[in-house]
Amino acid sequence: MKKKTQAIVTLLTDFGLQDEFVGVLKGVLLSRCPHLQIVDLSHQIPPQNIRAAAFLLNRAYRFFPRNTIHLAVVDPGVGSQRRLLAIETSRYTFIGPDNGLFTPIFERENILDIREITEQKYFLENQSTTFHGRDIMAPVAGLLASGMPIDQVGKKITVTSCAKISSPSPSRDSRVLRGEIIYIDGFGNCSTNLRREDIEGFAGSVPVVIHVGKHCIERLVCSYSEGTIGAPLALYDSHDCLEIAQNSGNLSKSHKLFTGEPVTVLKKEGLLKKK
Amino acid sequence: MKKKTQAIVTLLTDFGLQDEFVGVLKGVLLSRCPHLQIVDLSHQIPPQNIRAAAFLLNRAYRFFPRNTIHLAVVDPGVGSQRRLLAIETSRYTFIGPDNGLFTPIFERENILDIREITEQKYFLENQSTTFHGRDIMAPVAGLLASGMPIDQVGKKITVTSCAKISSPSPSRDSRVLRGEIIYIDGFGNCSTNLRREDIEGFAGSVPVVIHVGKHCIERLVCSYSEGTIGAPLALYDSHDCLEIAQNSGNLSKSHKLFTGEPVTVLKKEGLLKKK
Amino acid sequence: MKKKTQAIVTLLTDFGLQDEFVGVLKGVLLSRCPHLQIVDLSHQIPPQNIRAAAFLLNRAYRFFPRNTIHLAVVDPGVGSQRRLLAIETSRYTFIGPDNGLFTPIFERENILDIREITEQKYFLENQSTTFHGRDIMAPVAGLLASGMPIDQVGKKITVTSCAKISSPSPSRDSRVLRGEIIYIDGFGNCSTNLRREDIEGFAGSVPVVIHVGKHCIERLVCSYSEGTIGAPLALYDSHDCLEIAQNSGNLSKSHKLFTGEPVTVLKKEGLLKKK
Repeated sequence: MKKKTQAIVTLLTDFGLQDEFVGVLKGVLLSRCPHLQIVDLSHQIPPQNIRAAAFLLNRAYRFFPRNTIHLAVVDPGVGSQRRLLAIETSRYTFIGPDNGLFTPIFERENILDIREITEQKYFLENQSTTFHGRDIMAPVAGLLASGMPIDQVGKKITVTSCAKISSPSPSRDSRVLRGEIIYIDGFGNCSTNLRREDIEGFAGSVPVVIHVGKHCIERLVCSYSEGTIGAPLALYDSHDCLEIAQNSGNLSKSHKLFTGEPVTVLKKEGLLKKK
Repeated sequence: MKKKTQAIVTLLTDFGLQDEFVGVLKGVLLSRCPHLQIVDLSHQIPPQNIRAAAFLLNRAYRFFPRNTIHLAVVDPGVGSQRRLLAIETSRYTFIGPDNGLFTPIFERENILDIREITEQKYFLENQSTTFHGRDIMAPVAGLLASGMPIDQVGKKITVTSCAKISSPSPSRDSRVLRGEIIYIDGFGNCSTNLRREDIEGFAGSVPVVIHVGKHCIERLVCSYSEGTIGAPLALYDSHDCLEIAQNSGNLSKSHKLFTGEPVTVLKKEGLLKKK
Repeated sequence: MKKKTQAIVTLLTDFGLQDEFVGVLKGVLLSRCPHLQIVDLSHQIPPQNIRAAAFLLNRAYRFFPRNTIHLAVVDPGVGSQRRLLAIETSRYTFIGPDNGLFTPIFERENILDIREITEQKYFLENQSTTFHGRDIMAPVAGLLASGMPIDQVGKKITVTSCAKISSPSPSRDSRVLRGEIIYIDGFGNCSTNLRREDIEGFAGSVPVVIHVGKHCIERLVCSYSEGTIGAPLALYDSHDCLEIAQNSGNLSKSHKLFTGEPVTVLKKEGLLKKK
């Protein structure tokens, strides 16, 4: 079962980088799979924020080579009865708590097998109740990375039994398309839940106007550098979703825009007709 | 002398991640040992805080495969007469300044050999007086990782000659066990110097009450999620030490608990009898 | 064209570590070159700060093994007409936007070939206008790391056509040498644009006095630990440039010294004579 390709494990946690937690995960992974490539997705998920972790995982996992194992430890229920999952899709393996973190994977990937991780013999000895990333998930991920088949880790479970989180959906009528800001990145750029296809489906080839907070953005631009410095701009981001941003500067901070802020899209044509 | 196993070097510094310092260490390491696995333990040790570095190293080093080299550069004395050490134990190698950082290693590991690093021929040319991590410790660590025996780096010294730091010890009488908070992690959880065996040795099977700051914690729980939201909780952490924490939220910030804060443990039985 | 040495790519960005951006770059790199060593130089360049990126790259790149590829994505002009460069020197390859970031490389390295990256067939499909690090630079860097010759990426261009940034130069007369603070590191140490050779060329073997802000530093020391605690000190840093720092503590914060602050050097002899 030894894979010939380079084994890769990615890590997504809310551990931060101050403490030894991430390094310890890596030590355990390397103890099980010495030649592993380990890649940090992020360790700065806001503590216990499953929604942010799901958003970020969704934006990252597809850019990795086939067979990459994505280990996600945002686990507010550690030590409680929540299950730990190993999910095999046609391209990747995912490991983490059953708390909704994998909702986008269930929606987008071709799920081949889901196992509840229960086989104690693969865990570290003397497991704690507070650090299952170290004691359970990392050793299992390391073993899977070194070629152990997923059916060894525990009994098969169904995708319908797994926890999911709901995301705010856009709504529309003939006049207006409504969405919201769902994530603020480190630059202060505001990601929305409005995809290019939502907006094009709503407005066709008619130009649109975007309202967010007190601001009215008169057109979509193609790059940050097209925006007027200091003013909000709108563009399709690198995932083809509407993003509200700013040319130089942190929009979220300077314009006080946060997650949950409504974003509305209107057709310019309609606006003109009304006048 | 070429090792067949994957060479691993971990890094523990107070360099932060803003500057190029950590990357440069890695460049020097890879110049000496190209196929090295390099793992960051932390680079966010508070500047010059040897005590925090020792605490963190102690919590991390054992989770790495045998033969891992742990390079720790928290070095307020850089450029002064402090010595640089290479320490071989039966399982690991440690490299860093002789300033007390390795106290837990001296206490816990089976020390085979300690060398003072003095062999200039292994250093970078034109050493600075301010960055011995780059100029001395990284090149030596890289060479050791690629198989050079430790006796090449300088003369043998004794463990008794090496600097140690003292840690606050718990104290007890028949009525009360006293310890203190010794580390605050990035979640705001407060680690204490009271081990499970200290508490069980003190109270046996009698339930305990824990006092910290103005707070009285009536029982030990097994996981964060068992705690009442917003209130301090107590549990044994993943190293079997008493930790004061909170279910969701940063206890240290919200309850103003910091390093050095006394933590006292009382027997519940005793409390009842007194009434 | 397969290289036998270990392929190494370093990353220098202003992405921060909160989001998935850095992880995604690594996923794309590993998709093109699975056994790659990837090293982070820094991801905390202040957003869009090309000058800080150039400073940091200049301090780091030479410490890596020959043939290392340095990928630098500080790219405020992403999506505009700015060019993307692949630069081959006699020792390294550099990839990044043509915005002045590589000025120190043009000044210091032996440039063998510069290409404008235009060959779409090597890019990710469906490139965005906001994340060329992911869509263009990382895939090209990955292919170069796996042995593709640089002439494949686009047409040859000249170094004279490439953007450069100017740096503040020291000035001097017989009495005084004037420089400034050009970078503040994470410890609060203040790097200046005055090199040891500037100062020795100015003062010869005569001792110097250094003025910065309201402070007068009476002599150069050799290590931080020689400084009086709490007072500014001056020494030659690990790149043989004059640095203003402090023994324990953050000088920049405690003494309000920032980038651009003038630093003047006077000869002690001259001062005595005047009296």
